[in-house]
Parts: sequence; structure tokens; C-alpha cells
Amino acid sequence: MAGAGTAKAPKFLYNAWYVAGWSADLVPGARVARTFLDLPIVLFRTQGGQAAALEDRCCHRALPLSFGTVDGERIRCSYHGLEFNVEGQCEKIPAQDRIPSTACVRRFPLVERDALLWIWMGDIDLADASRIPDHPWHCDPRFTWKSHHFDVRGNWELLIENLMDLSHLPYIHARTIGGNPDLHFGVKTQAVRDGDNVRVSRYMPDSEPPPTYKAAKHFAGTIDRWQEIEFQPVLIRINTGACDAGTGAYDGARDHGFSMIGFHGITPETAATTHYFWSIATDAVAPGVPEQIFQQTADTFREDQEVLELQQLRISADPDRPLLDIASDVGSRQARQVLHRLMKAEQHDMQVAA
Amino acid sequence: MAGAGTAKAPKFLYNAWYVAGWSADLVPGARVARTFLDLPIVLFRTQGGQAAALEDRCCHRALPLSFGTVDGERIRCSYHGLEFNVEGQCEKIPAQDRIPSTACVRRFPLVERDALLWIWMGDIDLADASRIPDHPWHCDPRFTWKSHHFDVRGNWELLIENLMDLSHLPYIHARTIGGNPDLHFGVKTQAVRDGDNVRVSRYMPDSEPPPTYKAAKHFAGTIDRWQEIEFQPVLIRINTGACDAGTGAYDGARDHGFSMIGFHGITPETAATTHYFWSIATDAVAPGVPEQIFQQTADTFREDQEVLELQQLRISADPDRPLLDIASDVGSRQARQVLHRLMKAEQHDMQVAA
Amino acid sequence: MAGAGTAKAPKFLYNAWYVAGWSADLVPGARVARTFLDLPIVLFRTQGGQAAALEDRCCHRALPLSFGTVDGERIRCSYHGLEFNVEGQCEKIPAQDRIPSTACVRRFPLVERDALLWIWMGDIDLADASRIPDHPWHCDPRFTWKSHHFDVRGNWELLIENLMDLSHLPYIHARTIGGNPDLHFGVKTQAVRDGDNVRVSRYMPDSEPPPTYKAAKHFAGTIDRWQEIEFQPVLIRINTGACDAGTGAYDGARDHGFSMIGFHGITPETAATTHYFWSIATDAVAPGVPEQIFQQTADTFREDQEVLELQQLRISADPDRPLLDIASDVGSRQARQVLHRLMKAEQHDMQVAA
Repeated sequence: MAGAGTAKAPKFLYNAWYVAGWSADLVPGARVARTFLDLPIVLFRTQGGQAAALEDRCCHRALPLSFGTVDGERIRCSYHGLEFNVEGQCEKIPAQDRIPSTACVRRFPLVERDALLWIWMGDIDLADASRIPDHPWHCDPRFTWKSHHFDVRGNWELLIENLMDLSHLPYIHARTIGGNPDLHFGVKTQAVRDGDNVRVSRYMPDSEPPPTYKAAKHFAGTIDRWQEIEFQPVLIRINTGACDAGTGAYDGARDHGFSMIGFHGITPETAATTHYFWSIATDAVAPGVPEQIFQQTADTFREDQEVLELQQLRISADPDRPLLDIASDVGSRQARQVLHRLMKAEQHDMQVAA
Repeated sequence: MAGAGTAKAPKFLYNAWYVAGWSADLVPGARVARTFLDLPIVLFRTQGGQAAALEDRCCHRALPLSFGTVDGERIRCSYHGLEFNVEGQCEKIPAQDRIPSTACVRRFPLVERDALLWIWMGDIDLADASRIPDHPWHCDPRFTWKSHHFDVRGNWELLIENLMDLSHLPYIHARTIGGNPDLHFGVKTQAVRDGDNVRVSRYMPDSEPPPTYKAAKHFAGTIDRWQEIEFQPVLIRINTGACDAGTGAYDGARDHGFSMIGFHGITPETAATTHYFWSIATDAVAPGVPEQIFQQTADTFREDQEVLELQQLRISADPDRPLLDIASDVGSRQARQVLHRLMKAEQHDMQVAA
Repeated sequence: MAGAGTAKAPKFLYNAWYVAGWSADLVPGARVARTFLDLPIVLFRTQGGQAAALEDRCCHRALPLSFGTVDGERIRCSYHGLEFNVEGQCEKIPAQDRIPSTACVRRFPLVERDALLWIWMGDIDLADASRIPDHPWHCDPRFTWKSHHFDVRGNWELLIENLMDLSHLPYIHARTIGGNPDLHFGVKTQAVRDGDNVRVSRYMPDSEPPPTYKAAKHFAGTIDRWQEIEFQPVLIRINTGACDAGTGAYDGARDHGFSMIGFHGITPETAATTHYFWSIATDAVAPGVPEQIFQQTADTFREDQEVLELQQLRISADPDRPLLDIASDVGSRQARQVLHRLMKAEQHDMQVAA
């Protein structure tokens, strides 16, 4: 975390796909104001159904376009009526025939996929939609899922770190899903880096099913449990679940078991605040269980949110002060190393270009 | 607007008469704390009826004098009892015989005229009360008027710009007085500069009377309408109205018609906030019409206020970023040019003097 | 007050014992977060009864330890479970055998005496508990006392100044204990410096007992009154009271009279905010009188608090602007001179050491 908030170190990774929201946030005609990487953005959907992202600032008198209205395929500023298309080009200035080429606002590539809106805040020439991570569980009929959006008053790396190291469960979540500390620390954790991805896994073969698991699925006896955390810039997925012991879960045969797939879209709003777009999907079908899983997840994430905000208070007071790493930080440290390497390389490229 | 909020460009015009409030704000014994041009001021009225303006900071221990009390012809600090006259000179220090000449607070010329309080924040030697703009409608028995005071979280130039260009009516005020955009843009607008004054006018001869006009006055048929906006540093008056078509309204014969005179006192509080002292006067006499006009005006100005505050958010985030001018900005651009020329000249004079 | 808040002048006196709170604030297992001299501190009491003060920031991921829990003789961080003893040394890191010597948080000497918690924020080698001021009235069975804690949004020197100069009574406290200004200013005030202590005294021999005094004690006729204010870094005691006239009060024979002992622990939170830990002790025994004295004192101090916060607004706006001294400032000026001399000497020593 050292360096977060300082002037010279890069604050953000620009050339990456970030979650901008949920597709369902934007019905036709809707506009939503959100700040990403310190830039105010208006997300809107035209009457024809196209989702778009523009800088949320009219080029004429700086009024946020999100205060305007969507009319057909354009968004109209509510001050003097300038109209912009989804590319950010002005197509109408009332009482003026000629529209100068400078009458435009910056547009940001926005792609809808798997019920998510993905935005590209960096160099537009590098935006490659084929590199957007898939999340098939949002489209898989065997899975039930629900989503949420938290605004966290903490730096994005604090949230990444929180999710990459679940050894905090017995402490932060003592009142919810925490359980016995000794159980958590008795299990070996493996962290593996693969390019820009980091994968942390913990396996608990032949163990007792906890209450949620029993409610979700009938297990014959002991179970083979897994916890798999996968980071790629900038997204974390956490796959947890179990199958009957000895039925091949660790070789990939999991369809007969119980799974929960957590999706964690982590998008910096500013250096000190973060959009947290998350969902939880499960193949549990027992009545009431998916709802219970969603509620428990939401309660748990609120506990994390409080911790992140308290950390940020202390870090903001002295941003460059070093912190002590401990053994269980292995996964989060690798994720931060990937991020910092990418941010430095990007900063270097921008300096060379400038 | 470029330059608003930057360090080197002047933020305010000092040598000008500004509206400090309404005479009615100050009953004898009252004191009111207001900040003008970044300086905290106490306005008060002595028991003898004299209105005065002093810096709102006791020279002894910096307590605001507005927290004190008016006693006779003096204002007394509520901490240790120092008493100051309307010139800002200390006339009593409890338990101390000699009053040093340094025991004084800065005074600001304050003049009452036409139910308004006018303050001079600049060089006291240049304060010339004969240059205070008249506003006879506040004293004309043929006119009914009401006044208000809004605190706007936006730069003063944003408000000037808003009032100098009424092409925003169909957009900001679509729900109130806006009307059809095409009607507004079909009318030719003229902007004329005369010294430091800027006058914008729009005439709609032989047109249909809108509902408010019909309620205010019986018109025989079509009407000759006018909209006249006049800027002088730092005040805007907007005169709108109509007479029966062809009865001489455009040659000055308007006594037989219907008029609304808007007064807009625009006084910077800080670089990002503005005091907006406004009144609306009308010669309409139909029962309920003046009240309706006042209410409609207040509703409309609240809509403007919201827009100004949103603009300021974006401008504060990047104060020097240029904005695009469009054709309908002609009047507001001239007003800003006058202001910027005066501010630069004043800044130059102050640098020469220093 | 000149210089308060500036960058180069020292803001605080570090090598001094400050009141951190009341012993009663900390039951076993309790932890309290407070900022002193810009540093966030956690005060806690172990199950064994030991009160301690540590920096309120875990060395691992900066979470405030005050968000954690006290377990036995340690405080445990609620994020990943690190445990620290009262010396700030980490004694447990879950899932890690070796604890590095760098795993510690800064501890601050904390001493309990006379129902108060005293903290040392400076050089730990200079912390000498024998220099903690005594306040025997908190332990004297002849005295009844009550305590309170105000958070004041004003610089600590403003509060010192307020208490060292009671000539403000007829103005700030006109509605409560103020009384007639002439009475206050007719009495001679003496200010004497003795090393780092400053003592201000006012004596009113053979005077009429005011209502509170009559309610507190039966006096035969006129009384010999005293007001004694004593400053030592950083604490003020105000001893007020009276005996029957001519019975030796001014020679120290006061046991037969009526006394009120005000304790004022003044601890900077930041340069612009102050912890105000105060108590009032009295030997009055008439039913209801001690309660009435406490209530009156609390009401009075709230009036002072409002004044201090308004002063701070003006001072923060222009921290280096000089203020005018008047005759009644003699005591407060001496106290500030002591403080500024100590702060400068300390700053010099730190620069030499660095």
C-alpha cells in the first residue's frame, strides 16, 4: 500500500477494462453520473438501446450532461440545449447553423457483456474488447445470482488486498461467517502467479460440512471443500464450494456439488474511494438458500467496508509510511506487485509518448 | 469563465458598489454577518438608525463582532467588551483608560438607497456614492415588488452569464416558464455595449400574449413584447413586458402596458459562492397576479441556482480548462469582457501603487 | 496567539504531561480512540486493570487498534488478529511462528493519578512521572466533585487565554454568572510568574456574598473573597471562594469557608481543536449546592466554547495576522510567553538532535 496517494507514484492503472456498472442500471433513456479514476462520467442508454459513456461535462458551459435528458439517440444538455451522440459529437446547437468540430465531449469505450458494463478509461487505441474477462455464471441457467454496488471510502488496493487474503475471516467476520480461527489457519494456502493473474487456493479435503453447506445441498458425509481466489487486473473472482468427499472435486468434477461464485468488480473512483460492484451466484436450489447466501454476503461485505474505511483514515494521514507484511499476505502482495508493475510500465509509456 | 478560481488572475472587482443586502434586513440594533469578496463583514444598524459595515473581527482577540451587541451608536464585542463606533474606532476598553489609536477595525462605506444597502469593498478614497445605480421601481407607487436573497454555491460570473443569455429558458425552465424552444430562437437578439454597460434586447412585435400576460392585463388583441437586459458592474436589470400592438412600446410609450422589472444584485461571497439579492417589480394590478409573478420568479431562480452549482462543481475540478462559446453567448461574453478589463486594470493599479 | 497554525512555528509542546482522560473512562476491556497533538492514540485497560496508550494504527495494515478487542493483557487487531501487549510489542501473528522485532506499535507513557490519566507525547526518555501535577481535591473526602470532557473546535492557546483572563465574565457570561461589569473591573488583578508557572489573583475583602455563596454556606456578614488562577504547562487550576471577613482567608486559613476548585486539563487534539477535560470540586455541603455548581459551570463553559470556536474561524482564515493586546491580558500573555519559550527550546533541541 506504500505510495498510495503520493504525488509521483501512479495512482491508477488506465489501460484496463473496469466495471462501470450493471446493465440493469441503465434502462432506455436513463443516465447515471459516476466518477472513475478521478474523471466524472455520464453513463446513458439511448432510446434505441445503445449504452454509452461520455465525460460528464458539457463543452459549452461545463454543466454535467447527467443533469440533461436522453432524446432518441442523443443526450441533450439541460442548460442551452446542445445535443451529443454516443460518440460525443455535438449534433445540434440551438440557434446556430454551423457546428464547430471542437463541439464535442470525450467518449469512453463502453461494452456490455454478461450483464455487466465495462469501461475503458485509458488510451482509446488500446481498447480491445476481446480482453474483457468473461463471467459466464451471470448467463448460466443453473446459477441464481444477485448483484450490488457499494461505494467504499477506501483506496482500491485496500479492497483487492482484503479479498486476496481470507485469513481475516475469523476477525472481521467473527459475528457473521468467521468461525474458529484455528480452523482457518490449519489449512495450507497456495498462491501462484500466471502472467498478470494471481491465483490463491485453499483445499479442505474430507472435512465436516458447515451449516450453510448442509442447508444448500444434501451431502452423504464428509466433503472435499475448495476456496479459489483469482485476481486479474482489475477483477477478483472467489469460487468456494464442496462435493462429497472423494468424488473428484479437486480434478474438476464439481457439477454434482455446491458452488458459490463471487464476482468483485473493483473500480477506483478517486485515490481514496472505490466503486465495488459485486455479485454472488450459486447452484444451490434448496428453497431460501440463494436468498440467504446473498444476504450473508452483503452483511459480510459491509463489515469489510467499515474496515477499509478505517484503514484509509490512517493511510491518508501518512500515505508513504511503510507497513509490515506478514506470512498470510502472500496472495495480496503478488496482486499488488502485478498492479504496480503494470502502472509503472504504463506511466513510462506515457512519459515516452509525451 | 476561463481563469475563474486561478491564483494569478484577479478573482474579484474591488472598486465597485455591491449590494450588501436589503434595508429591511437591518432593524435598529440588528447585526448581520455576511462575507463579501472573501472578507467577513458585520452589517449593523445603531439604535439611532445608522446602518454601518465593519470587518467582522474584533482587533483584540478576533471574535466576530456580529456575535456582539449593538448598544446605542456602538457595537460591543461579546468577549471582553470593547466598543466600536460606526467608523470602526474603539471608544471603550473596559478597565483601561487609554485607548490606543491601533484599537480599530476596518470600516466599509455603506449607503442606503432604493431600499437597498450598497457596500464598497475597494479603495475607500475611490468610493463615490453618486455612482450607485438608481433603481426607482423600488420607490414607485405604481409598482408592487418583493425581494429575496439566495446563497448560490457558484462563482458570480456564472450568475451574470446565466442572466445575460435567456436562450436557456426552454431548457432549464422547461417545467416552469420555458415554453417552446423554437419560439425563443426565432427572435433576433441584439447586444450593444455602451462604456461599461451591456444591453441585450429582444423584441417580439405583433405576437400572441402568453397566459401570464393575459392574466395581468386586458389586451385588445396581439401585443408588442420586449425583453431588455442591462448589465452594469455589478448589477443586472431585466425589463420584460408588452403593450397592445402598434401603440408605441418600441418608442418608449409603455405606461399603458404591462411590465416586470427584475433587479439582480450579484455580490461575490468567495470565488466559488455568490450572494444573489433579487427583486421583481410589476405594474400589474389584477388580483393575485403580483403574488403569482413573485412565486414564479422564485421557482425559476431556484432552477438556475441548481444549474450554477453543478457547473461550479465541474469548473472547480479544473478551473483553467477552456470552454466553448456559442452564438447565443454574445451578451454574456461582452459582460465578461467588461468585467475582466476592469479587474485587470484595477489589479495593475494596485501593483503600481504597491 | 500570533503564529498559531503557521508552518514554521512549533504547533505543540511535546515534552509535557497532558491529561488523556479520566480514569473512569476506562473500565477493564475498554478501548478509547483519541487524537493528541495530531497523533491518533488508543487508550485501553487490560482485564488485569493496567491502563495503556499505544499509537492507534496496527503496524500491519494500519487498521485502528481501537476497532479491535482487549483480550487478557493484550489488544488484538480486528483485521488479521495481531496481538500487542501494553508496551506495544506484538506477541502473536496468526499462522506465523516467528514474530519479527519490527512488529510493534509506538507506546506512550500513561500514568493514573488523582482519577486522571496523564499521557506523555514527547521524548520517552524525558518522561518523569514525578513531575505530574498533583490534584489532591479529587481524593479529598471533604470535597464533592464532578468531571466532564468537551471537544473544542479551537486552538489550545485560545482556551488557556480564556481561563487566564476572567475579565470576560460580564460579557460572555452575561446570561449566566457574569454579573455587573463595574464590579469586575473595580478589583485589582495581580499576575506573578514563578518559573514556568503563572499565578493570577484577585481579592475582594469585606464584600457582599453573592447568591451562590449564600446558598453554599452560612456567612455571618461580609466576606473576604478570592479568585486564584494558576497555570503550569499544561494545566490551569482556578480556586475561588470566601471566608467570613477578617478570619484569615488571605493568610491561608480557609477551612472554615467555601471553596470551588476548577481543574482544567487542556490537551491539543490538532492545531485547531482541543480536548478540554475539566472538573469542579467544592466543599459546600448544603443540599443541592454541589449539583447546582456543576450545572452552572457546565453552562458557563459551553458559552466559552462557542466563543473559542468563532475566534478560531477568524484566526484560521489569517493565522499570522497580529492581534491587539489590552491591559487585562497580562495573565494570559505571561502564560503564552512561557509556552512559546518552552516550545522554541524544545524545537531547538530536536533540531540539534536531528
